[in-house]
Amino acid sequence: MADSTATGARPADEPGQPPKLTTSALADQAPAQSMAQRITPFEVSGGVDESGKLLPVDYEKLTREFGATPINTELLERFERVTGKRAHRFMRRGIVFSHRDLGKILDRYEKGEPFYLYTGRGPSSDSMHVGHSVPFEFTKFLQDTFDCPLVIQLTDDEKFMHSKKLKLEDVKKFALDNAKDIIAIGFDPSKTFIFNDTGGIMGTPFFDNVISMAKRITANQIYGTFGFNSGNNVGEIFFCAVQSAPAFATSFPHIFGDNPAKVRSIPCLIPCAIDQDPYFRQCRENAEQMKCKKPSLIHSIFLPALQGPGSKMSASIDSSAIFLTDTPNQIKNKINRFAFSGGQDTAEKQRELGGNTKVDVPFQYMTFFMEDDEELARIKKAYESGEMLTGEIKQICIKYLQDYVAGFQARRKAVTDEVRQDFFAFKQLTYQGNPNPVKKDSVEEKKEGGKTKVGPGHAKKMSIGRTKPEN
Amino acid sequence: MADSTATGARPADEPGQPPKLTTSALADQAPAQSMAQRITPFEVSGGVDESGKLLPVDYEKLTREFGATPINTELLERFERVTGKRAHRFMRRGIVFSHRDLGKILDRYEKGEPFYLYTGRGPSSDSMHVGHSVPFEFTKFLQDTFDCPLVIQLTDDEKFMHSKKLKLEDVKKFALDNAKDIIAIGFDPSKTFIFNDTGGIMGTPFFDNVISMAKRITANQIYGTFGFNSGNNVGEIFFCAVQSAPAFATSFPHIFGDNPAKVRSIPCLIPCAIDQDPYFRQCRENAEQMKCKKPSLIHSIFLPALQGPGSKMSASIDSSAIFLTDTPNQIKNKINRFAFSGGQDTAEKQRELGGNTKVDVPFQYMTFFMEDDEELARIKKAYESGEMLTGEIKQICIKYLQDYVAGFQARRKAVTDEVRQDFFAFKQLTYQGNPNPVKKDSVEEKKEGGKTKVGPGHAKKMSIGRTKPEN
Repeated sequence: MADSTATGARPADEPGQPPKLTTSALADQAPAQSMAQRITPFEVSGGVDESGKLLPVDYEKLTREFGATPINTELLERFERVTGKRAHRFMRRGIVFSHRDLGKILDRYEKGEPFYLYTGRGPSSDSMHVGHSVPFEFTKFLQDTFDCPLVIQLTDDEKFMHSKKLKLEDVKKFALDNAKDIIAIGFDPSKTFIFNDTGGIMGTPFFDNVISMAKRITANQIYGTFGFNSGNNVGEIFFCAVQSAPAFATSFPHIFGDNPAKVRSIPCLIPCAIDQDPYFRQCRENAEQMKCKKPSLIHSIFLPALQGPGSKMSASIDSSAIFLTDTPNQIKNKINRFAFSGGQDTAEKQRELGGNTKVDVPFQYMTFFMEDDEELARIKKAYESGEMLTGEIKQICIKYLQDYVAGFQARRKAVTDEVRQDFFAFKQLTYQGNPNPVKKDSVEEKKEGGKTKVGPGHAKKMSIGRTKPEN
Repeated sequence: MADSTATGARPADEPGQPPKLTTSALADQAPAQSMAQRITPFEVSGGVDESGKLLPVDYEKLTREFGATPINTELLERFERVTGKRAHRFMRRGIVFSHRDLGKILDRYEKGEPFYLYTGRGPSSDSMHVGHSVPFEFTKFLQDTFDCPLVIQLTDDEKFMHSKKLKLEDVKKFALDNAKDIIAIGFDPSKTFIFNDTGGIMGTPFFDNVISMAKRITANQIYGTFGFNSGNNVGEIFFCAVQSAPAFATSFPHIFGDNPAKVRSIPCLIPCAIDQDPYFRQCRENAEQMKCKKPSLIHSIFLPALQGPGSKMSASIDSSAIFLTDTPNQIKNKINRFAFSGGQDTAEKQRELGGNTKVDVPFQYMTFFMEDDEELARIKKAYESGEMLTGEIKQICIKYLQDYVAGFQARRKAVTDEVRQDFFAFKQLTYQGNPNPVKKDSVEEKKEGGKTKVGPGHAKKMSIGRTKPEN
């Protein structure tokens, strides 16, 4: 992790000497005997000595531990030579004291090659103090010196996730307030871009729901629910929050309107295969804390792989699946060659003992794709009794799958890029809901009465406060 | 985690009976003796018995373990009564077999209250098979039945993060291809919204960089770097990737243009306080794998709290900090009352022994806010020699801080919402860079020659392929 641009050891400060072009600090660094110094992005403490005295932060030690490089006289001189400007007082006095690859930036400036500045702030409150202004003062100096773009990130998402008490609306407000303070340091608007993470850089009402869910799930819960461990990447661990967001109507202002107080009372029903249930258990556990409705679910089983009902089809194993792009011939060959049979080894034995529809893949597929219940029951009976042979049931299955896939392929041909764009558009949707809803009173009556038939009520358009599309 | 809407036990299937309105499946469920069934969103296996035979998935066991509720005859009958439609063959045959709170959705439909459908797919390949179409076929039936909005999430971010070999461009392409297949199932475009996570719902070039970084960081690395553990929430654990994204010029197409191949060669320099270094160590470690330049850094120390140089100012401890909103009087009182002094207890002892500027907070503050090196050196000498008293050095410090804060406040007044909006706009930036860059040859010469003075080169505008703002 150590830099390759090490520029030598930093000279010790000489007390009582006038400030000079060196990193020797007037803001002197601490002695090395500090016992429990602790510096992370979340805690800054120089430690306490035996007598309970607060110790200054030992920045030299920190630089060594972090593997950064002290800024030395030679580098400061090069900075002044290349930029033609005097080093900032923070640099002259060791307040700006260490770096990584600063030399490479000076190389680029020297050659007129582009680079930019990036700094930021975690907007944890609306009160900035003079300590907060130090890195921004220095950044302004660098922007003035290099005449280059500057991006400033306000990590409102971070502060939201790290705080027990801060609400999302709090940190968003802090970000906007802090931005004004930062601007007042004196940045050039023509060269500076400021953004908050929950703003337009990636933030949307959808992302707000993602982070609101993420805040409520610990890594431990994810490990338990999904079988992950701390060797998984942080994207995998975070992702469940992304899959939760669509379960909240507030994620879709272009569909449901942008009044969250109203919109969050709208629940959803999630049809999914049973393996997706863990995501939504997690979601349901936290939904009410987010003042949203729990999503409802309805689960399906898996279409078995050709090899049998112990697994599901896999897109990466060609012989396990019938693809939506398969030709009639491919379908025929796959069923004939690969479909696990519940029939007997010989026609004679099949006639005698019959087949087992519980494990017979062709029969299982027909339960998915054949609409006619009576025909299906007839086939079941015939196959189990031995009246129908393996080859015969496969032929029927092949026909149904060929028909299904051919029907799909015909519709698929009509799906152009324009058709797709229409589905992806942030447009209003038009829907009716129940054309004959029961009046509230009738529903109560019905519930009490138990078996009263539901009568038609007012035809009410199922819509609430839609507004113009966002994003 | 169990639902409150339990509808009773599921009747056992009767082999050989015709299909009827029940969850008894023709696609029969497995016997209970399976030994190593494993169902997560990432693995589906019914297990293997002692003889090595693949076992069917035991869905009843799964429903119990997940705490979901089997769909029983009563619920199916209610579905048909409320919707006025025959239950889908998947429901009749136990292919759609379990639920959570489906009753609540039927309640809402009955009353004409709004709800919506949500389903999705992880686009792990461009080949969808007939197994993938099962949940979508059923979803189409539900949309036709309920006449309600449907949102379909394509989790390209998930598939990217879970796959060693898939690139971001692969999963984005799969998402768009899969969308066409899904549309061909027959969804109604006026009621259906389809989106991919890395698309407009929250996805931006910035988000692409966030997830590209997240994929390369394990939770273990975060625990080590930030002192977190598995009790932290997944947002905290993920966040480092969000702080990395601005270090890549490709996050800002409105500034640098939208040609990633060119733009990713542009590095940044990050001025920050030293406590932020861990974020960017992580970023630097992975930057080159992402085909981007490592960011350079330049670190500052902390402005000490009023209580002394062992900690930094805290916005939540009023007496620790000088706020940018403090009045001249507040500043005076805070310095006089709270600023830790390196002086002696009495004026006599101070005259005799002098003060310690290394721990004296008023002196430390002056190293930050007083520009004049000679004046600062004079004060240092006077204070350390005992010529200057504690009260005197505090007065000087008060004056400098009052001036600094007053200057800030005057500029702050001019920052209106409109001014802020200009900084937040996705607009092109205008900058010049080095007005006199050295020609490449001269730089080489200079490096070889060692001390050659840098001469003016071509004045080159530091800009590359900017395009119109995105987002």
